[in-house]
Amino acid sequence: MPATHDDGALVVAVDLSTTAAKAVLVDAVGHVHAEGSAALETASPHPAWHEQDATQWWSAARSAIAGAVAQVDPAKVRALCVTHQRETFVCLDAEDRPLRPAILWVDGRASAEIAELGTGRVHQVSGKPPDTTPAIYKLAWLSRHEPTALSRAARVGDVQAYLARRLTGRWATSVASADTLGLLDLSAGSWSPALLELAGVRVDQLPELVPTGDEIGRLTARAAEELGLASGLPVVAGLGDGQSAGLALRTDQPGVAYLNLGTSMVLGVRADAYAADPAFRTLAGMVPGTFTLETVLNAASYLAAWCRRELGDPGLDADAQLAFFEQAAARVPPGSEGLITLPYWNAAQTPYWDPDARGAVVGWHGRHTRAHLYRSLLEGVAFELRRHLEDLERATGRPVRVIRAVGGGARSETWMRIVTDVTRRPVEVCSAGEMSAAGAGALAHSWLAGRPGTADLAPPTGRTVEPDPPVADVYDRWYVAYRGLYPALRETFSALAGAQTPGRVRMEP
Amino acid sequence: MPATHDDGALVVAVDLSTTAAKAVLVDAVGHVHAEGSAALETASPHPAWHEQDATQWWSAARSAIAGAVAQVDPAKVRALCVTHQRETFVCLDAEDRPLRPAILWVDGRASAEIAELGTGRVHQVSGKPPDTTPAIYKLAWLSRHEPTALSRAARVGDVQAYLARRLTGRWATSVASADTLGLLDLSAGSWSPALLELAGVRVDQLPELVPTGDEIGRLTARAAEELGLASGLPVVAGLGDGQSAGLALRTDQPGVAYLNLGTSMVLGVRADAYAADPAFRTLAGMVPGTFTLETVLNAASYLAAWCRRELGDPGLDADAQLAFFEQAAARVPPGSEGLITLPYWNAAQTPYWDPDARGAVVGWHGRHTRAHLYRSLLEGVAFELRRHLEDLERATGRPVRVIRAVGGGARSETWMRIVTDVTRRPVEVCSAGEMSAAGAGALAHSWLAGRPGTADLAPPTGRTVEPDPPVADVYDRWYVAYRGLYPALRETFSALAGAQTPGRVRMEP
Repeated sequence: MPATHDDGALVVAVDLSTTAAKAVLVDAVGHVHAEGSAALETASPHPAWHEQDATQWWSAARSAIAGAVAQVDPAKVRALCVTHQRETFVCLDAEDRPLRPAILWVDGRASAEIAELGTGRVHQVSGKPPDTTPAIYKLAWLSRHEPTALSRAARVGDVQAYLARRLTGRWATSVASADTLGLLDLSAGSWSPALLELAGVRVDQLPELVPTGDEIGRLTARAAEELGLASGLPVVAGLGDGQSAGLALRTDQPGVAYLNLGTSMVLGVRADAYAADPAFRTLAGMVPGTFTLETVLNAASYLAAWCRRELGDPGLDADAQLAFFEQAAARVPPGSEGLITLPYWNAAQTPYWDPDARGAVVGWHGRHTRAHLYRSLLEGVAFELRRHLEDLERATGRPVRVIRAVGGGARSETWMRIVTDVTRRPVEVCSAGEMSAAGAGALAHSWLAGRPGTADLAPPTGRTVEPDPPVADVYDRWYVAYRGLYPALRETFSALAGAQTPGRVRMEP
Repeated sequence: MPATHDDGALVVAVDLSTTAAKAVLVDAVGHVHAEGSAALETASPHPAWHEQDATQWWSAARSAIAGAVAQVDPAKVRALCVTHQRETFVCLDAEDRPLRPAILWVDGRASAEIAELGTGRVHQVSGKPPDTTPAIYKLAWLSRHEPTALSRAARVGDVQAYLARRLTGRWATSVASADTLGLLDLSAGSWSPALLELAGVRVDQLPELVPTGDEIGRLTARAAEELGLASGLPVVAGLGDGQSAGLALRTDQPGVAYLNLGTSMVLGVRADAYAADPAFRTLAGMVPGTFTLETVLNAASYLAAWCRRELGDPGLDADAQLAFFEQAAARVPPGSEGLITLPYWNAAQTPYWDPDARGAVVGWHGRHTRAHLYRSLLEGVAFELRRHLEDLERATGRPVRVIRAVGGGARSETWMRIVTDVTRRPVEVCSAGEMSAAGAGALAHSWLAGRPGTADLAPPTGRTVEPDPPVADVYDRWYVAYRGLYPALRETFSALAGAQTPGRVRMEP
């Protein structure tokens, strides 16, 4: 589905993820002409803390962009758009120097603030159930523990705001990027005075908000020189990485959900009206004026990797280990002969949002092997996905007909079979790599084509896995047991959390 | 503590266990002068069936006894006593030929009969909570499925009855051996007409009942010749293997419990009054006129062996595997960092008697390793033991001050530390091997000394492991979570059993 502007035009799509800055030069039909990347470092000065040096965001992005641009005719490059890790924020002084390391989405320092400040009202206004990821609780933590870092900051903003400042000189971001800070009155699309007060942030510190897909600014002469691009190149307002990938997967269309089955699992659909519910977190939409509803499980392919590492054959290397488990799990019958897994290794998110929840494997019998456990882990994630889908459908009143899957877990044939059979939905497995960057590229091309905030790309092609009704019937029976598992164990999780009080625990000799 | 009769006297103690016939020649202070043994075969013509050819009981016992007797002066041998696998029974024709294979305690064919016939009334009369092991349900199964094997039988009896018939010509056994068939009115010590009717057995088929420790008969000339012993040698009525080991461990004394931590876990104490309660199974006592209360968990060191086999390093041999897990588990802190195990791999016995119950491991987090799981399994068995102890004490009103432990699990230092810390009881680890045979030997010597049904042996010496109060305090906290686990999961176990209906389940490619 080619855009109407010059077919030779390229744009720079920048994806500043948690681990690296990637730059991709794409044409209007999504073909990649050049790529560059540079790694990012994360520091954990305390076990639950996860921080980055924001100046690395710029140095890594600069290196990735310049590296990609050097491979093409720079005159063909007509625009640039950024996508990025969500919920991460930085505090800058008046000279744009970080006052402390940026605090990442995964950072878990603010559990006390979540418990204290994470009310239903905050959820209702921001769309975000109280949870680890939104920046608002970590900003409140800063207000208490490092008050000067916040009060002295000239600027407090998200990753796109930081990069836009370095690229264009303007302190601005998109609604759909700023949203995950958790400071917006989301239905209005503007900063919420009540949430700012709760976080201890002033509105003058925050970036201007630009609609997704509009021009955020123009490349400064200095940035242009560093990147090998033309001064004055338009920078288009992008999306956070989840919605950006969702846009590239064309799940801005009704009835289609994106499934990112990575370390964590995120399922997203478009909603036209604002709603807040424990069944999902509400985000600014892939398309301006819409919303994105996401369900979350923090441990998905994380579980499979954990099992391979901790309970596999130590004599196998990672590839052989993966091949063994993938094949052995495929031979275990659906239902893992009665072994059922609640996959809350990293607590429960949608719909329980219970920080004390932990994993459970129930139904053990002597016939079970490590292959049964592995399959049960994959099935547990799929059961959780089915619950997420059912809750989403009930909350929105709109069915999800198709799932478009990306992420490391989507490369497992066994897992994709399980997902389609458990959910009774066709799963389109999209192996195309950089979906977040593809979304940014599509936004930049749409701006060039005079249709800002849309995507003209066809959805990526991939193989479709269809449910097998007899197996789906089998899973229906196990799912009954799965649904009861968390309610049954809620009190046990509380008791385990209570037992884990710090104190003298003697190690045995 | 020598007996008063001739110190040179030896007796033959025969232990006919599930796997072998063992014969031990012991003197009055328990020293072993000679041993012999011969293996037994078990057949499983269907997965849940476990059968033996009873004629092997005699050929194996004969071989073991003759082999041991050949090593000593047979004139010194003054008596013989048998201990044996419990609950196992055989049906014989008028010429003492088995009408079908003997059905073992572990045989699980009678689940329908247990569900249908296993009432509170049966429990009240027999002392046996409805469960796999008592013969009564398998006799009822025979009445339905092989009626002629039962109706044509001239004799139906336990292992000791069969061996006594071959040794003395008399069809007799002890109350404490016959008891585990589940056909006695246990408080009266006589066959129950109601239970016989339920099983489909006539009283004329059953052996005479002799008090434990009394003379059961005299060796026939033919048996004496086959064994190399004197014709007319007294055969003393023994005990089932559990109580026989309990006697040798001198847990016929109050406040002392025997713990057999083998494949399954059995804890036993003496009671002076009859009582029936789901917290234990009630057996004829180690000493006539008393009772033995036993708690049961069918999967104990079974669990540890399963974990080593299924989740260990396939590159290690069995000894190295055991050494790895023993040492690695010892380094995991008490409580396994929040990982808690319900050890019902082979269903729940005391106090729930739930055939649908299965294992559960709850509290998983990414920090957990296979060593955490192994320790959690050992701790789960110990938590279950603590619950058994508390229920026993509540039911009897008598505290258990000391645990005397035998069995394969007692060889694990890590496990014994866990058991003492979780239960807050000193554990005397008795490594002396053949406790069941030692009990039979003590009974034979007591008969010779004119004190039938008593034991004059000192308890075996072993190292004592004492609880460490700070660690016991830690376990108290985890135990709160443990106690809630089965009640929380009872419905899930029902749902899993319901989901496991037979039907077409496609294997994945």
